[in-house]
Formats: sequence, structure tokens, C-alpha cells
Amino acid sequence: MISTKIKAKLASGSAIRKMFEEGNRLKKLYGDDNVFDFSIGNPDLEPPKEVAETLKELANNPTPGMHGYMSNSGYESTRAAIAAQRSAQSGLSIDAGAVCMTVGAASAMNDVLHSLLDDGDEVIVLAPFFMEYINYIENHNGKVVIVKTGDDFMPDFGAIKAAITSKTKAIIINSPNNPSGVIYSEEQLSKLNELLKAQDHVIQVISDEPYIDLVYDGLTVPSVLKYIDNVVICFSWSKSLSLPGERIGYTLVSPKNEDYEDLTGAIVLSNRILGSVNAPAIWQKVVEKALNAKVDVANYEHRRNLLYSNIVDAGFEAVKPNGALYIFMKTPDGLTDVEFQEVCAKYNLLLVPGASFKREGYMRLAFCVSEKTITGSRQAFFKIAEELNIAHKAEL
Amino acid sequence: MISTKIKAKLASGSAIRKMFEEGNRLKKLYGDDNVFDFSIGNPDLEPPKEVAETLKELANNPTPGMHGYMSNSGYESTRAAIAAQRSAQSGLSIDAGAVCMTVGAASAMNDVLHSLLDDGDEVIVLAPFFMEYINYIENHNGKVVIVKTGDDFMPDFGAIKAAITSKTKAIIINSPNNPSGVIYSEEQLSKLNELLKAQDHVIQVISDEPYIDLVYDGLTVPSVLKYIDNVVICFSWSKSLSLPGERIGYTLVSPKNEDYEDLTGAIVLSNRILGSVNAPAIWQKVVEKALNAKVDVANYEHRRNLLYSNIVDAGFEAVKPNGALYIFMKTPDGLTDVEFQEVCAKYNLLLVPGASFKREGYMRLAFCVSEKTITGSRQAFFKIAEELNIAHKAEL
Repeated sequence: MISTKIKAKLASGSAIRKMFEEGNRLKKLYGDDNVFDFSIGNPDLEPPKEVAETLKELANNPTPGMHGYMSNSGYESTRAAIAAQRSAQSGLSIDAGAVCMTVGAASAMNDVLHSLLDDGDEVIVLAPFFMEYINYIENHNGKVVIVKTGDDFMPDFGAIKAAITSKTKAIIINSPNNPSGVIYSEEQLSKLNELLKAQDHVIQVISDEPYIDLVYDGLTVPSVLKYIDNVVICFSWSKSLSLPGERIGYTLVSPKNEDYEDLTGAIVLSNRILGSVNAPAIWQKVVEKALNAKVDVANYEHRRNLLYSNIVDAGFEAVKPNGALYIFMKTPDGLTDVEFQEVCAKYNLLLVPGASFKREGYMRLAFCVSEKTITGSRQAFFKIAEELNIAHKAEL
Repeated sequence: MISTKIKAKLASGSAIRKMFEEGNRLKKLYGDDNVFDFSIGNPDLEPPKEVAETLKELANNPTPGMHGYMSNSGYESTRAAIAAQRSAQSGLSIDAGAVCMTVGAASAMNDVLHSLLDDGDEVIVLAPFFMEYINYIENHNGKVVIVKTGDDFMPDFGAIKAAITSKTKAIIINSPNNPSGVIYSEEQLSKLNELLKAQDHVIQVISDEPYIDLVYDGLTVPSVLKYIDNVVICFSWSKSLSLPGERIGYTLVSPKNEDYEDLTGAIVLSNRILGSVNAPAIWQKVVEKALNAKVDVANYEHRRNLLYSNIVDAGFEAVKPNGALYIFMKTPDGLTDVEFQEVCAKYNLLLVPGASFKREGYMRLAFCVSEKTITGSRQAFFKIAEELNIAHKAEL
């Protein structure tokens, strides 16, 4: 009696559940320390001290009404602070009205897609990508159009151009990217803008930015607001402040967006009617105070370095990720992803096949796992390479 | 460039915005104390002390990982506590798996409707009702079927039966009701169950219960779980604990539900893909500790009594509400709701016409406003009655 669509999705969800159960089975059998589970991307650092301090302050000195309703788009002061931060980063003049507070980026994406899509409208996604995008698009009767990126996981502008039709309503970008960790350059953002502006109808760029603060090697992520006109940002503090269980994020419509008026209004309404009106009040206040705080990014960078070394030293190939929490390593030639996954499982090494990101020939490894797991896994990578007759590039 | 559906909804939303602006205009002109604004149903009591205490405890002694991801359906311990509470109330044996934590009841309703509805499936709603139901149903391509209740706002079983078709997937009930404040009796719930079970396909009852703890006159709300088999509850602590800005609620599928397995799974998945996965972690912990706490219901009851007296003493008619936060008074004979609204506005008295609840001939007044506003309004009610030649039933 449940809906046919959700029934199909329930059935297809079983692959991930199976992997999760397999991980648990192996851990029971061999002990936690002897299973190298890189399958789950769960931010594991504690929030920065500004979060705990502000929370304590709010709890110890509650203001009357602090848990009450506010304007549908969130507290004016929180939105103004975000607008000021984004103005400083982009050089644009953004006001609080551009921002709508949401229960995380997933909710933000749903609000934006609900605002944009008529039945059958197309949304371009660049593979590899976070598979929930498919659900988000289909929730609002949109059609997913998958365009492959290059071997460097950067946008292939020819392929994007070829995929555009009169029904193309939006394109989702995600830089730093899950699962590849690549960051789009200023030049690439400008080129995307040019390509889209050359079309005979507006195509919105939805910039999903949960990883924007998790960047390594001294790099910074170019502000999309600077380079793309028709853009809506979806942001979440799940990773930047390590608050994934608390659900707090926002949408921000560029003041240069041709649909600015309609879109800001539609997002607030969508946020309300999709049931996510009023992002948690207490977290709005916390993020406002902790706006410039960040988790210990160096800690993630250190673990990225360790895991990346394991992979390439053992003899495997991977594009070194400059951001996010994942390495998208190449599956060795001659093996399918599932075959390679099976070899890895023999050494208690768990990773996610590229099919889960619509890009086969690769495996995703999350490095937000304990350092012990990463160092412990080095031997496993080397043994797997040996079994596959792959020459090591360094000593164990 | 935004979706046609949302564009239409944006346009129709302007009536409520206009009323809100009119209220602000009058308040500026005459002063807050001289405007009697009963139009907005915003729970205005502070949360009970258990909420502030638990929040303080959590903030002062943070546990590592307390803001992290949890299982998609929420903390096991929170869900188990809710299941135990509902088991005790209903006499059923309910386990934690029946419960999915959500960001409030609005999100819960969207999760349930997303789980149930195929395109064009029909959902029966009983007028008068909370108008957001229309949005929630249409979000998931459902068709709203409105059935009028009786003059006492109780279900009209003949009319419900006549409205059922092969496409009827669900019926939404809301007791205590917004806007009428009526509570359905055990007998009425049993009768509804019988009627639905006599159909040749399963029709789910969606029981929207945000007001279940706001009950007056020593009454209690019968547990729907006791009387209805195929039922899903949508609950929120927005009113019970006065936490409307924090967004915390749940869905609960009856263990007697014929679709129990499918529906519990589908709701968790819908919660995830609609973007509301992981209801705020900190609030899950707070409500678990404060599960048996309630706002000061006597305070609301006192204000209900005052406002109800104003209405009937002045000579108007209303069904006395046993629960919730509203009085749904009858529009005097010979006037349309809008004409009556205009007369009231002359005396700075603001109320919401029945059209906003799909039941004309009535006006909604929220009594969760300051006692001063209620006592101050008494004179206005009397003057309005005089202007309309309605005889007072008591002294001013």
C-alpha cells in the first residue's frame, strides 16, 4: 500500500545496508582494530570550542522566547551575519533577504529543487556525485541527467553543453566534491557561467557546499558568487562545525540571480510546506556566534595524507583530493569494482564501489576514520597489491 | 523560471501576509495595547523547567559525539522511551522500531504522505482543517478531498463514506482540532475504524496530534492507537513543551497497521530523502528526559475561558473548544466572513476568516495571546455586537 516509487527505492537501498551489515559482521569476527572500514563518511571531529561555549551560554542564560517561532526564513540577525560573511568573500553586496535557514543542506537542496522544478524538468549532475541528488531531484518530479566529468573529475564543458535541452532547469555542482575531493578553479566556474549564459533560457546553478571549509594544502575554494550569476548556494554546518546530527544550514540566492525575487520567495515557501520551516532556533544562534570557527582541518589533512600514502605507496592510483573527506581511488585495471571490493574484503578492507556515485572504475574511501584504522590498513593495501601483482611504489 | 505550482502558491499566500501587515499597521497607529490581534497561533508559554534543566545539563557536560549522526530514524533510547509511553497509553506493545524522529509534525506529515502517495492518490481531510495539509498532500502529487464535518465539527461518517473511492489512500484527522478545538470521542474513533475497515482496500488514518497535551476541562484525548488499526501518528513537541522554533517531533506506526513493515521502512527513507534525516540530536535528548513534562496547560485554559466568555457574553456563538489554542466562532447571520472581519477591524479586532480553514461561516481566534489583549478586547466584542444589533448575553 505504500507508494510505488518509495517501494522501488526501499528495495534498491538494500545494497548499502548489506555493506553496513557486512562491516559489522567482520568487526564482530575479527575485532574493531582488525577491520579497516572506509565505507562511511561520518565527520568524527568534535565541534570547535566556540560551539560548546555558545551552547553553554544559551543554556545557562535562557532568554524568554528563545525556543519560539521566528520568521519563516530564520532569525534576521543570523541571516544578516551570513550575508555579511558571503559579501566579504565575494565582493558582492548581499543582504539578509538572500538567505533562508534550513535543517541542513539536504533540506536546502529539497527546498531549491521544489522551488524550481516543474514535472519533467531536467537537472544535470556531474558524475561522480553524491547519490542522494537523485532522490532530491525525483522527489520533485525532476529528471536526472548525468554528465561524466574528465579523468581529473573536472567539468567536461563539451559534455555539459551537449546535455542541455529546453527542459534543463538546473545543474548541481559540488566543490570540494564528494566523492572525488576535487575543487573547481575560478576559471572553471567562469567557463561554466559563460556556457550557461549563452543558452536561450536561465539555467540555475545549485552549488552544494557542505565541504567548503574542509580544504587542504593551503588552498581556498573560489566563491561561486564571484564567478556565476544564476546561482543558489546550499550550505550546511555538518562538516565545518561537525554538527551533522543537529541539522543546520542555509540557502543563499546570489543578488546577481535573474530570478532573485521569485526564487528567494519560493525557497522560503518551499521550506515551510516541505515541513522544514524554522531551522532549529538554538543552532541558528550558535552558528551566528561561531560563524568564523572551523573544526580542526589539519587533523583531517593529516589523515588524508596517511591514507593517500597507503594507497599510492602500495601501488594503486588516485587523484589526490584537495578537500572533503574522501579519496576516490582507481580500481586496478582488469577488475570490476565489485571484484576489487571482494579482494579487499578478504583483507578486511571495506570501501564503496563507484556505482554508488554513478562512476564505475573507482572506489570511495572515507578518511574520517580513526588514525589507528588508517595506519593499521597500510599492510592490507600492500597485501592486496601483492595478490593483484601490482608493484609497490614505496616500502611498507 | 520558478515552478508553476510554487508560483501559484506564492500568489495565493499574499492574503495572509496582507492580514499580518494590516495588524502591524494598526499596532503602529493605535499602540500594541489597543489592537486585539487573535490571528496568529503562536504558542507563547515558556517550556517547562525540565526542558531548561536538561538543556543546561547537556551543555555543561557535553558527551563526545553528542552532535554527530545517529541512526536515520533517531536515537534508539529516545524512540524506545516514546514507544513505552505510547504503549502505556494504548495498552498495545509498541517497540522503538515503530518510531521515527522528525523535525516537527510538518516534516512528519510530509514523510508519511511521501511514503504513501502515488500520483493522483486521494487524501480525505475534514473541514475545518489546518490549510497546510493541502500543501503537504500536493507536495507528493496527491489529490485533496475535502469532507465537511457537522455543526459540532465532529466527523460526518455518511459524508466520509460517500467521499471514498478506489484512489483513497488516507484520511487525516486532527484531534484536538485546529481550528475548532474539538476532541473526537472513543466512539467516533471506533466508528471511523469500522467504516475504513469495511472498504476493499487499506485506507490509512494519519493522526496529526500536535495539540494532544493541550486539553481542558479535565478531559483526556482517547488514544487513537486503541481504536484505529491502520493509523500513523504525527506528533510534535511544539505545543506540549512549547518548542515550536526547535522542530522536534516523530511519526509512530501502529503495530496493528497492516502495512507496518513497509510503512516504517518507507517513512525512515522518506525522512532521509526529503532532507530531514536526523531530527536535531540535542532536542532528541531533551524530549527523552522531559517526556512526561508539559507546559502550564491551566494558563491556556484560563485564557480560553476569558476569550470564550467575551464571545458568548457579547452575544456571539461558538462551540466551546476542549483543546488546542483556538476558538472557531460563528459568523453572525446575514454577514459573510469578510464583511464580519471588516466590522471587527473597525474595533481593532483581528481574526481569521473560515476560508483559511476551508469552512466558511466561522472565524478563528487564537487565545495564545496576552491576557491583557483578551481582557482589553471584551469591550470591542460588545461594541461589535451592538453595531450588528446582536443582544448581549451578559453585562460588560
